[in-house]
Amino acid sequence: MNHIIRNATILTMNDRNEILEHSDVVVEGGIIARIGPGAGKAADNANIIDGSGKLLMPGLINGHCHVPMTLLRNYADDMDLQTWLFEHIFPVEDRMNGDDIYWGTLLGIMEMVSTGTTCFADMYDGMDSIASAVERSGIRAQLSRGQTSNDPGPDFSQDPAMKDSVDFIKKWNGAAEGRITAAMAPHAIYTCSPAYIRAIAEMAERLGVPIHVHLDETVREHEECLKTHGKTPAAHLYDLGLFDLDTIAAHCVCITGEDMVRLKEKDVSVIHCPASNLKLASGIAPIPEALSAGLNVCIGTDGASSNNNLNMWEDMYLASILHKGSRRDPKTITAADALRMATANGAKALGMPYVGSIREGNKADMILVDLGKPHLKPLHNLYSTLVYSAQGSDVSMTMVDGRILYQDGEFKTIDREKVYYHLEKVCERLFG
Amino acid sequence: MNHIIRNATILTMNDRNEILEHSDVVVEGGIIARIGPGAGKAADNANIIDGSGKLLMPGLINGHCHVPMTLLRNYADDMDLQTWLFEHIFPVEDRMNGDDIYWGTLLGIMEMVSTGTTCFADMYDGMDSIASAVERSGIRAQLSRGQTSNDPGPDFSQDPAMKDSVDFIKKWNGAAEGRITAAMAPHAIYTCSPAYIRAIAEMAERLGVPIHVHLDETVREHEECLKTHGKTPAAHLYDLGLFDLDTIAAHCVCITGEDMVRLKEKDVSVIHCPASNLKLASGIAPIPEALSAGLNVCIGTDGASSNNNLNMWEDMYLASILHKGSRRDPKTITAADALRMATANGAKALGMPYVGSIREGNKADMILVDLGKPHLKPLHNLYSTLVYSAQGSDVSMTMVDGRILYQDGEFKTIDREKVYYHLEKVCERLFG
Repeated sequence: MNHIIRNATILTMNDRNEILEHSDVVVEGGIIARIGPGAGKAADNANIIDGSGKLLMPGLINGHCHVPMTLLRNYADDMDLQTWLFEHIFPVEDRMNGDDIYWGTLLGIMEMVSTGTTCFADMYDGMDSIASAVERSGIRAQLSRGQTSNDPGPDFSQDPAMKDSVDFIKKWNGAAEGRITAAMAPHAIYTCSPAYIRAIAEMAERLGVPIHVHLDETVREHEECLKTHGKTPAAHLYDLGLFDLDTIAAHCVCITGEDMVRLKEKDVSVIHCPASNLKLASGIAPIPEALSAGLNVCIGTDGASSNNNLNMWEDMYLASILHKGSRRDPKTITAADALRMATANGAKALGMPYVGSIREGNKADMILVDLGKPHLKPLHNLYSTLVYSAQGSDVSMTMVDGRILYQDGEFKTIDREKVYYHLEKVCERLFG
Repeated sequence: MNHIIRNATILTMNDRNEILEHSDVVVEGGIIARIGPGAGKAADNANIIDGSGKLLMPGLINGHCHVPMTLLRNYADDMDLQTWLFEHIFPVEDRMNGDDIYWGTLLGIMEMVSTGTTCFADMYDGMDSIASAVERSGIRAQLSRGQTSNDPGPDFSQDPAMKDSVDFIKKWNGAAEGRITAAMAPHAIYTCSPAYIRAIAEMAERLGVPIHVHLDETVREHEECLKTHGKTPAAHLYDLGLFDLDTIAAHCVCITGEDMVRLKEKDVSVIHCPASNLKLASGIAPIPEALSAGLNVCIGTDGASSNNNLNMWEDMYLASILHKGSRRDPKTITAADALRMATANGAKALGMPYVGSIREGNKADMILVDLGKPHLKPLHNLYSTLVYSAQGSDVSMTMVDGRILYQDGEFKTIDREKVYYHLEKVCERLFG
């Protein structure tokens, strides 16, 4: 279906940072066909959406998630990472089947689309179920099967995780009208041997897919890597050749200035996950320095068991105010910087130049924000209003590929009650 | 009107931290008359509210605000404090009249009641207008006329701010059926001379009102106080006798261990304002130490021009995750701690033992939270769900003194369109 959004304020997030007042956006065949005042007048047979008093902007791009962990939201908190992971998270994950993952993913996607996220990058297991839920829901995603090795043996092609990952890529890369892309995911340096990481890099190169990896999330990871490999985690992956592929690196809490030079040389994107890093007590990533080093920084929520949300508005807000306060510099990471991280930078990181900004020819991944709420008034500055005052619940419409997934509290592609019904069954089985 | 809320989950925040399932709350004459399963059956002539799938809890108490600054929300951001204050905030404040303050206050109260705040402590000028808006809206507030001195002369009783403050207290303390209480507010040690602070303390003692003060908000304040007075800001106020009165001290970013002993000795409550402290780049207050020292810590938003919200859910979330991350301690400030700060501790700070918990005999200041949203599922732990996942927009009903102020998106005591109309006029005048 074609759409005309009439008379909205448009935050383009294009290279010129244009804001257009009283403008229309015409969507034809899933593509942004025309933008501008009166652009919608000529079009026929279109669904007309009144954009008065609303802001139209690119959908948010969540650069790092483990969406089925939504099942574990608020299951274990306020404890140290080892206790959390080994005593609470892993035992439940060991019991999860494909069905659990499917319904958990749909629940997470409901949260994402209702708060304006149109695309997410995910790393998990049971990717067939995740991809099915993505296909069904209409959201866009870059999916990767997280791989870990202890002693995978000499022939990596026979490694179950490697086979699983390759099968997933062959089946799903480019599926769902191109909404699903695949990546490979060596989980982290502390869960993958150097030879295994090299084997994943070779396979990814052969298959032509990018890399999604956890990088330098904790002091412990950083120090153990220095001890074991005599170099930082980023230097270790650089030397293994992983960064020769298009790579997104989540967390980067402990990266050094020299690491930033390495990441910049290889165009590695940094996925900043401020809520997760705070809540899990990992620390505060050196994002102002990463930006100064010219790195492409975007924003991720991480899973809902360490955030405990998949709400990009919270992480945008944190990405802007956290560094101001922790280093006592009020000018660092402006509201516009944070918005760019959550939109255009995310698109760049995931190799999707066709989303992340409102531009003619782009895919119609976009949202409407209701500017009529008391907490968004008065509207002195649009960037500040969005980053410092707006909430996920201010999103009134979410569109992906020209299809409305959420509007005015209603999910258009997901049966909310059905998800809740299955969620109850799943939780009884997993936690009952 | 009497009310019966039926079949809700009740987070009491009482001393035993009780959570009651499938329980009723009966409100009679503005008071919580009965609580428990089936408690509502006998009551007649009451408004019945279905609490199924909802959480009933005490309303949130915002310990530090400058509510008319809502007019300056998102007006000036991403700049240093001096530029922000002297070049942007003060010039507009100089132009504000009582009308501006009245409508700005109502706008701020709309945000507060729609996000579950039932009481706030405010420090500003033009208090008659603020009090009128509080009276009209039905919210509860402790209001204080912020006083500053440069050279007030020898007779403090003739100081205009002092006279204004005394007049305000005489007129409004205990007004609006007791919903308005008054305090005195020496603005800060860097804006008030020692003699002026002493004069305010004497006047407050004479009038029997408590104190609201900014304390040790920035490194600059701290260091200049050391240079000028040879002691910390807290020691300075302690020695001046200010803390001999019931006192709430906002910010406390730079207080020392010795300061905490002083504050504890005098039962001074600390108002933690994490969002404002981050956004204005003031730093991170030593809240875990303050709690260890036995201090009563509560939460404030500060004004909407330095937050940029009056949304206590954001500050609760920050109060819990910020300290975990900044000091890499995942166990510090649990979800339950943060909820207590925002409710029972706030009531204690403001000398209002009759609110802050759901207890028979307390005033009916309470809210309902809709637990049916995707981002609140699954519900593994109620405290975690509220602090780590819930949003201000999940509040479906806000009641103060037994009167419903907000329900399902509707303001019951404030004409939203009228406020917006006047807001536009006010903004044209102030900023046009």
